Amino acid sequence: MTDRSIKALLFDVFGTVVDWRTSVIREGEAFGSTNRIQGIDWVAFADAWRGLYQPTMQKVRSGAAPWQPLDELHRASLDKLLAEHGVSGIPEAELERFNRAWHRLDPWPDAVSGLTRLKRKYILATCSNGNVALMVNLAKHAGLPWDMVLGAELARHYKPCPETYKRSVEFLRLDPSACVMVAAHNRDLAAAAACGLKTAFVPRPQEFGAQAESPVGKPDLAPSQKWDFVAEDFNKLAALLGP
Amino acid sequence: MTDRSIKALLFDVFGTVVDWRTSVIREGEAFGSTNRIQGIDWVAFADAWRGLYQPTMQKVRSGAAPWQPLDELHRASLDKLLAEHGVSGIPEAELERFNRAWHRLDPWPDAVSGLTRLKRKYILATCSNGNVALMVNLAKHAGLPWDMVLGAELARHYKPCPETYKRSVEFLRLDPSACVMVAAHNRDLAAAAACGLKTAFVPRPQEFGAQAESPVGKPDLAPSQKWDFVAEDFNKLAALLGP
Repeated sequence: MTDRSIKALLFDVFGTVVDWRTSVIREGEAFGSTNRIQGIDWVAFADAWRGLYQPTMQKVRSGAAPWQPLDELHRASLDKLLAEHGVSGIPEAELERFNRAWHRLDPWPDAVSGLTRLKRKYILATCSNGNVALMVNLAKHAGLPWDMVLGAELARHYKPCPETYKRSVEFLRLDPSACVMVAAHNRDLAAAAACGLKTAFVPRPQEFGAQAESPVGKPDLAPSQKWDFVAEDFNKLAALLGP
Repeated sequence: MTDRSIKALLFDVFGTVVDWRTSVIREGEAFGSTNRIQGIDWVAFADAWRGLYQPTMQKVRSGAAPWQPLDELHRASLDKLLAEHGVSGIPEAELERFNRAWHRLDPWPDAVSGLTRLKRKYILATCSNGNVALMVNLAKHAGLPWDMVLGAELARHYKPCPETYKRSVEFLRLDPSACVMVAAHNRDLAAAAACGLKTAFVPRPQEFGAQAESPVGKPDLAPSQKWDFVAEDFNKLAALLGP
């Protein structure tokens, strides 16, 4: 099953490596408590915030908005949601700290051990829509042992635009076929495969809550195509790919 | 001495973190032996190769040559030097492997332990003229625990152009004063300081050989200005900066 031509693994991060939803709900509750905000359902707030993720990136992809890193898209969405809830007068430092909730997401339980094992054999890089500072801070928070942060900010294109995958591979000076895109999302893998990358599907059935109750998405429970690798978690992926 | 506003340390790499000269001499000897090349003094060859470093980058800085990553500048210099020595007919894979000698440089003895300690408290990033693939492969080879590879390729400007330092800081979304440039070269620190970064000088008296015998440069044995921090090696730098 292993293929000696494989040199690097590129990872989707939100949902695939980290549990954004549980973490953002927890951060919302803390933000509400610190700032004495009442009457907000922080579960629904987290989902609404994530719900603005694709629409705001789509404006950038389409050219309707200029390039901007994800931190800025997150902040515009946060400001919009708080205004809709009638919240105002929060100190800027508090808003900025809450916006950086996305820098403090917790990893899935298998993520650090699986990545640590995979790092012995492969270059591990992010290929996320998160910007560099977000990814670097998230790695510090969660203990993610990346060799490199690649992805949207370096390519100045949001996934699933092909430029994001192509530029990431080019920075490593590797052939696309020497790289495996790892994601919990079939759409991400399909876009990477179209650029010549190999693919590994690791489902995250709890990305949208234990009962998949979030209104902003449903987990991909099964591969939509015959991906090169399918594994239940990162430790099983490490067992498949060696060492 | 420590300053709680400091969040990230940016490192020059060639000479400051790794001993390029000893490593390239060793790789040259191996390349010569494998390819049955006679009559080349590999010490002089390593110095001549490094001697073309600044002139080839200067062509890019001045606009006389288009942007290209350091791997390509190294390769053009290698081809030129081998031709000057009358060497031809070497298989492309061997040439490429020798060009990647710069991806396999050994760290100074204190580098890994000092960086590992500093990483507990700070973001550690490269701010080198080496390109991303070179830096990533070098980190794998030498065990350098970077959080991020920044520097020339991401800025598309070679140090000491201010853009290299400024873009590196911008990717981290930090104020320049929250970043410390660490280098064995006063010129690099002066350029970083002009961009508002803090500075740490770590002399590497053996960069140009145990007797400083290389014709391509002399080590900076002492600070040329009052830098923010001066340390004899990376472990002493960690003792200065905490934790």
